[in-house]
Amino acid sequence: MERITSVQNPKVKRAVRLMSSARARREEGAFVLEGLRLCLDVPRSGLTAETVFVTDELLARHGDELEPLLACAEEAFLVPEHVAERLSDTRNPQGVFCVCPSLDKQTGRNKMKQMDAAGKYLLLENVQDPANLGAISRTAEALGLTGLFVSGGCDVTGPKALRASMGALLRLPVLMTDNVTETIQQAEKSGIKTFASTPDQTALPIASADFRGGVLVVVGNEANGVTEETLACCQTRITIPMSGRAESLNAGAAASILMWEMVRPYETS
Amino acid sequence: MERITSVQNPKVKRAVRLMSSARARREEGAFVLEGLRLCLDVPRSGLTAETVFVTDELLARHGDELEPLLACAEEAFLVPEHVAERLSDTRNPQGVFCVCPSLDKQTGRNKMKQMDAAGKYLLLENVQDPANLGAISRTAEALGLTGLFVSGGCDVTGPKALRASMGALLRLPVLMTDNVTETIQQAEKSGIKTFASTPDQTALPIASADFRGGVLVVVGNEANGVTEETLACCQTRITIPMSGRAESLNAGAAASILMWEMVRPYETS
Repeated sequence: MERITSVQNPKVKRAVRLMSSARARREEGAFVLEGLRLCLDVPRSGLTAETVFVTDELLARHGDELEPLLACAEEAFLVPEHVAERLSDTRNPQGVFCVCPSLDKQTGRNKMKQMDAAGKYLLLENVQDPANLGAISRTAEALGLTGLFVSGGCDVTGPKALRASMGALLRLPVLMTDNVTETIQQAEKSGIKTFASTPDQTALPIASADFRGGVLVVVGNEANGVTEETLACCQTRITIPMSGRAESLNAGAAASILMWEMVRPYETS
Repeated sequence: MERITSVQNPKVKRAVRLMSSARARREEGAFVLEGLRLCLDVPRSGLTAETVFVTDELLARHGDELEPLLACAEEAFLVPEHVAERLSDTRNPQGVFCVCPSLDKQTGRNKMKQMDAAGKYLLLENVQDPANLGAISRTAEALGLTGLFVSGGCDVTGPKALRASMGALLRLPVLMTDNVTETIQQAEKSGIKTFASTPDQTALPIASADFRGGVLVVVGNEANGVTEETLACCQTRITIPMSGRAESLNAGAAASILMWEMVRPYETS
């Protein structure tokens, strides 16, 4: 394996740029994964890698595990600790990094044309905190949601979001959308019921909503909630009943409860 | 108002110690709140303060709002920015800090003798992440839980937990317990049903559990879950059904879903 020893190497500089800038990721159509767990998800998820960087130490300890990753990469380089530190988004880098072509290029998932009429979808509108986005996608995957729409807010291929998602953002169907109204209309045309969540306690309590069949639920920005335009566009406004003292649930907690209610089995008695 | 200008002042040093050390909080029976929102919760929650530190700038901008806090404090000092920076747990301090006697001293809540036979309680066993603890307490308050038991794990009066709780940890009945088995037995004696949550998918799915009446649910440590001893001690093991790909829900998401299911209205049809 070739060795790169300078942080000035153009491949290293590109990876650093992709790691730190959502704009660079968008313009160059690539993103970076860091850490053994996320990098090993690349071959497991049937994705490919452009460039892998790995430290001597990590390769010595985890060579066998890294085999499938190195096999699916176009190129791989050994790097010393100081290059790993430069590449890393964390304080204690594990020592493996993987530059991947953007997920739309690889999976064409941004070109999803048809929604599943019986699917369960969550739409995140302007969610700002990558840790929230990551945690919500992890819960969405665990609960078996059909897919996640993301409009505005933070980048789904940013390092913090990917880390918090434990790789769920690589595996779950995730669709970026610039036009929430259009997505909602498309869902309704596919026979999917659309709901906007709001802290407004006069909305329909979620336990009274009928989530059978195809459902799309919108969760809004942490501070401002779902936009007026989107509230107006959805068929039903729903709310999680609250007992008063707290002003609202945080976006992650609200999304968890909403997703659970979407997939919760109906009593048959 | 008197002025303190040195970070070497013993009152400042004490506050810094209380801010940074759970052990100091335990030994000295006091803790520190930072920021306008949390500090203003002190008089609102009927608590008292020992010492308030406030910057000239914040006092000039928020003097009226700070009135009730200053009124409930034994002493208050003006401090310059560099002292505020030394006191602060955050990168951009707002400029107000409040040293309070521990909540057991103030509210005697650690001496709760009787549990409510119809109450809804969550017990957190060894939850390590203060952000998780804070977020869970915020959700518990919003959903109207009766109280929170905390055993091991992180300190409920640490700055990160308090901040993530948006003050819920000051308002919600929170009981520290060293002996989970004893707490569970006490709950059962009070006629409360006890449940341990586990990712083990052979346990009872939460939608099939009967959460009517008094309920106590145990949520375990982020990595290791509920201890074997506690699992054995609860009446029922429950689980959130998962669809496979993700290994588990994170503790915050699982706790949100569990608490919602505990308070969710039963269908009457």
